[in-house]
Amino acid sequence: MIFLVLKLNIQITDQISKRTINQFMQQQKNLFAHYKQPSIKEDSYVTGLNLANSMKGRELVPFIPINGRQVNFYYCGPTIYKKFHLGHARTYLGIDIIRRTLRDYFNYDLLSVMNITDIDDKIINGAKLANQDFLEYTKIWEKNFFSAMESLSIELPDVITRCSDYIPEIVTFIEKIISNGYAYNNNGSVYFDIQKYLADGHTYPKMRPEINVDQLQEGERESQVNKQSEKKSLNDFILWKASKPEEPKWHSPWGEGRPGWHIQCSVMASSILGNPIDLHAGGIDLVYPHHDNSQAQAEACFNCDQWINYFIHLGHLNFANRKMSRSLKDFITIDEILKKYTPRQIRLNFAIHKYDTVMDYSEEHFEQAISIDKTYHKFFQNTQIYLRDSQITGPQKWMQNDFQISNLLRNTKQVIHIELLNNFNFPTVIDAIDKLINQVNVQITNKTVRAPLVHSVVEYVKFILGLIGLNYQTQNNNSSDIKLIMTEVCSIRDQVKLATSKGEFEAIQNIVTQKQFQYEKNLSNGIVDCVNQFQQQVLVASQDKNKQLLFQLCDKLRDEQLFDLGIKIEDKQQVSIWKQYDPQELKLEREQQQKLIQQKEQIKKKEEEKKKQEELIQLEKSKIHPKDMFLTQIDKYSEFDENGIPVKDKNGNELSKKQNKVVKELWEIQNKIHNQYLLQLQKQQQ
Amino acid sequence: MIFLVLKLNIQITDQISKRTINQFMQQQKNLFAHYKQPSIKEDSYVTGLNLANSMKGRELVPFIPINGRQVNFYYCGPTIYKKFHLGHARTYLGIDIIRRTLRDYFNYDLLSVMNITDIDDKIINGAKLANQDFLEYTKIWEKNFFSAMESLSIELPDVITRCSDYIPEIVTFIEKIISNGYAYNNNGSVYFDIQKYLADGHTYPKMRPEINVDQLQEGERESQVNKQSEKKSLNDFILWKASKPEEPKWHSPWGEGRPGWHIQCSVMASSILGNPIDLHAGGIDLVYPHHDNSQAQAEACFNCDQWINYFIHLGHLNFANRKMSRSLKDFITIDEILKKYTPRQIRLNFAIHKYDTVMDYSEEHFEQAISIDKTYHKFFQNTQIYLRDSQITGPQKWMQNDFQISNLLRNTKQVIHIELLNNFNFPTVIDAIDKLINQVNVQITNKTVRAPLVHSVVEYVKFILGLIGLNYQTQNNNSSDIKLIMTEVCSIRDQVKLATSKGEFEAIQNIVTQKQFQYEKNLSNGIVDCVNQFQQQVLVASQDKNKQLLFQLCDKLRDEQLFDLGIKIEDKQQVSIWKQYDPQELKLEREQQQKLIQQKEQIKKKEEEKKKQEELIQLEKSKIHPKDMFLTQIDKYSEFDENGIPVKDKNGNELSKKQNKVVKELWEIQNKIHNQYLLQLQKQQQ
Repeated sequence: MIFLVLKLNIQITDQISKRTINQFMQQQKNLFAHYKQPSIKEDSYVTGLNLANSMKGRELVPFIPINGRQVNFYYCGPTIYKKFHLGHARTYLGIDIIRRTLRDYFNYDLLSVMNITDIDDKIINGAKLANQDFLEYTKIWEKNFFSAMESLSIELPDVITRCSDYIPEIVTFIEKIISNGYAYNNNGSVYFDIQKYLADGHTYPKMRPEINVDQLQEGERESQVNKQSEKKSLNDFILWKASKPEEPKWHSPWGEGRPGWHIQCSVMASSILGNPIDLHAGGIDLVYPHHDNSQAQAEACFNCDQWINYFIHLGHLNFANRKMSRSLKDFITIDEILKKYTPRQIRLNFAIHKYDTVMDYSEEHFEQAISIDKTYHKFFQNTQIYLRDSQITGPQKWMQNDFQISNLLRNTKQVIHIELLNNFNFPTVIDAIDKLINQVNVQITNKTVRAPLVHSVVEYVKFILGLIGLNYQTQNNNSSDIKLIMTEVCSIRDQVKLATSKGEFEAIQNIVTQKQFQYEKNLSNGIVDCVNQFQQQVLVASQDKNKQLLFQLCDKLRDEQLFDLGIKIEDKQQVSIWKQYDPQELKLEREQQQKLIQQKEQIKKKEEEKKKQEELIQLEKSKIHPKDMFLTQIDKYSEFDENGIPVKDKNGNELSKKQNKVVKELWEIQNKIHNQYLLQLQKQQQ
Repeated sequence: MIFLVLKLNIQITDQISKRTINQFMQQQKNLFAHYKQPSIKEDSYVTGLNLANSMKGRELVPFIPINGRQVNFYYCGPTIYKKFHLGHARTYLGIDIIRRTLRDYFNYDLLSVMNITDIDDKIINGAKLANQDFLEYTKIWEKNFFSAMESLSIELPDVITRCSDYIPEIVTFIEKIISNGYAYNNNGSVYFDIQKYLADGHTYPKMRPEINVDQLQEGERESQVNKQSEKKSLNDFILWKASKPEEPKWHSPWGEGRPGWHIQCSVMASSILGNPIDLHAGGIDLVYPHHDNSQAQAEACFNCDQWINYFIHLGHLNFANRKMSRSLKDFITIDEILKKYTPRQIRLNFAIHKYDTVMDYSEEHFEQAISIDKTYHKFFQNTQIYLRDSQITGPQKWMQNDFQISNLLRNTKQVIHIELLNNFNFPTVIDAIDKLINQVNVQITNKTVRAPLVHSVVEYVKFILGLIGLNYQTQNNNSSDIKLIMTEVCSIRDQVKLATSKGEFEAIQNIVTQKQFQYEKNLSNGIVDCVNQFQQQVLVASQDKNKQLLFQLCDKLRDEQLFDLGIKIEDKQQVSIWKQYDPQELKLEREQQQKLIQQKEQIKKKEEEKKKQEELIQLEKSKIHPKDMFLTQIDKYSEFDENGIPVKDKNGNELSKKQNKVVKELWEIQNKIHNQYLLQLQKQQQ
């Protein structure tokens, strides 16, 4: 039983009252009995992947595509009327990671389609409010969407379908539904006939089967409120909306109007991918009614049993413990978030949570992401240096540590393979990577692991992090040119520091007049300028025999000039090493570090204050003579002995043995404390 | 029968006399009956890959690793005593491609070990000849090997094992063989006891079972010739060689000496990978005796049936129709080859042939490789420009061509998947890629395909070519900086050309004095210098109103200055476009193009000369009057009529009817030709 409970990954909604697990599971089984799980055929490509399938109540279902390795994948895109925010980021980043994993790890032949909803009530209203032309308005917000996607390095789908391009197809589709008997025209608007659909034995809704038919929402507020008179049944949802004045409109057999929201996905997805479709994804808030309606429409049009085989849903992002949706004022836009965090940190923030779970927005999560990001970045930098400095002609024989790392690498690959199969369980994948990295870091520090093996580990880590869309490559390929000059720069600076510490000013002058650096083809001019200026200033300072200034100049070169170019110098004992970063990232990293330090200092300060206060209280307490300690407690006691120890309670009754014992102990403790205080006083006076 | 013949991939050697296919196949079946094909277990990872397995006479055998996705892979490395040459390149490039495919396409968890034979007769002799210390000598040639590998971008194995590091392990291994009864010590040398091995029921040799026991070679000439007296059986091969004076030596239970050649691989492979091992590869010339001896040794030591499950062999490279081996003087070293061809072209040259087939070195093959390389390079450049210039907010709806390309892409993926499973059949893979690329090129030229789909095609092609180790990324990531300045440079140059053609010299002066280009952080100084100089020279030339010079300067900028920086400008009607290359590659490409043109011109010249000669001969012939034509043929004829037509043969007999007819026809033809000649003369005189 417990095993079964662990396997099922079901979200219990408010509408299901609490029952025993037994009854619940039985009901679950019945509720999703309509789902036809694809079976393994002779040419099936079976990887062992299991997905939390909303078609089966989010149970883990083995993923079997219809046609060999081919996977047809559709996911809901944006309704373009406002800025891209963090909630969107979670959904699209989640899908991005899933796509990469399906394609690059499991080698499926993936064809991905994403729609753009560019005809919608919210867009029309938004354009009116902004006093803009409808088309112009959608163009602006579509551009904003794609810019945001690009800034987060989210891959574009293979196909983009805009609703406004598919009006003819939508009309044809609706006509088919009508002719199949599942929709009707009333007053220029077309509605889906839910009663007829149910009466003919169809299941609806498929993914929220526990919903009471009477409670069925339509999903488009407007129709539900305004057009009840046109509908056969309250729950019928709109497919085609009769035109209203001053609204964009298109021609149809039922008059002028525009598509409803739900119909768009059914039409565009099947236009490209046909029927049935392997995989459909979207945010969890779309499950019902939007996704269920999409399915009903398609199944009503094609007269098929099951339009989508696997439906997966991305979890919500709760912001300040509230659902991240536009109707709330306090949302976070991508522009603002990118001022605080890098795209990589944002990705990691989400990747450390399962894609289909609800998640709270919190600074702590981000800090965890920042920390992991730094770990990875350091790992790649350190291994790069280790490999850069290793000689292939050096010792290569495997020692115990090499076998250890190799075994760990193989174990890690096994664990990660299993966890990726397990509904893309990336949090555990990241844990496994962390363990591997930690071990390798230790071996690298001790120089007890062969470089080719390190290289193999690095390549594997790169590959897995690539599935998350994380890229730690240094952005320049002219690194060989920079390598040469940077080696020289570090050497000069190290020599200056050493000579300065020895007060050898003439030597310094020699060092910095050896070579005037020239611009060379493709060489970083910035570095050239830095080092020439450094040499100049050091020359003067050494002529003035100004040690302090000399050290300051060395620091300035490291912390400001080269830092601004994205070059980080790390002073290691006598020799320094250099690493190259994206200048923007380096700057952001420093800001985040400073912020962290500030926070720590604030916490420390608060604790110190708190401690100080406590000490004061203790001091005051210790000044009290034990014989006075109970005197004020007249609400408890009425009579005291010569030492101030209570003998009678407030009612005049003698204290019990136990009470006596207690007050005597307290008296002793206070006596001790007070004597210590007196001793302290004496010492101070001496 | 025919089906079976098609499936078997057997190389018929000289030693097997020709028999009927029937008898042959029956014999094959029997010859390799000892091979135990791995069976599919519950946790087996089955991709469908088939390998030409030398353990089964190079029949295609389904590849089933011992342990899930893990593949333990050992391949023979170099004996380091001479320069790396093209034959080596074929072997190591072949293995490189196989490794990448196993790991990156089929997602096996690959652990690859390669040995370095740094103790060997040839090394000792080479060091003596070169008058160098043995250790120094090996260091030099090992470095040469790894440099060559690096210049060809061949990946290092995960583990490198040098023979000299494994002496203790070798000694222990040999001791085990001795104690198992399959080797014996004689006079400080240890030999493998083949007769005992065979007598105990072992199969030897396993991969060349048709070889007559009496004909067994030992594989190390020296022992065979010199030490026959020490061996129980002529065919026993040496495991440990007793020391000779002035040779490097190591201590052993049998005295001072050094390992034989064969023992090294058995010991080092099993040291890292254990026993049994999934996959072993090497050049075909090593099959027997080296690989078979390696197996015998390991099986004699571990007392196991089958040490290697899959043995694959890389085909020979024949040079000038002779086997590429060191004993031939005319070999091609990597250094020389790289002066003529790029690493990518060398890889392609081999990839268009199946890895396990024999191959002739020829210029034609290389030309084919050059042509394919250019096709790929152009494809990536053109698609890069297409994607660079496309707007995501533009039209996205799929048209017929998009569906076509998408279907072609999917078909291509299917074909390639099947062909990779089929013993890494890369020639067919390359054909499939070519077809795909051609179609996409057409669509791009007509601008009739959506950019996201092009991107998907590009990524897939990149992935597959990556398995061959081909990388067409432009090497710089500062392309955004260069993009800005190059756009300006092209614009200025285009304006200058246009204004020059119109004779608008003042306008030119305005154009080139608009902006003095400055060095900017990380910007290519070379381009800055070029454009500043161009502007200067154009200014002067326009002041002199020198059109010719102005055009020359525009050409010079394109063909020399920017070309040397790796920037290729292509003039398209009025606007030029620019593409970035590796400068070295661009230069080499031009040289190869010029060479090709030269060759074509030479061929054309020769043909013209030949044609001219023939014409001369014809002219001379036409000068002869028909009545004279037979007169000189006194060896055939004795009498002639008034027209010079022969009537009697040399013996005085009259010609037959047939002979008559023939000579009359010849006379008529010559008459015609001669008359034409006379006509021609007349015309000339007029």
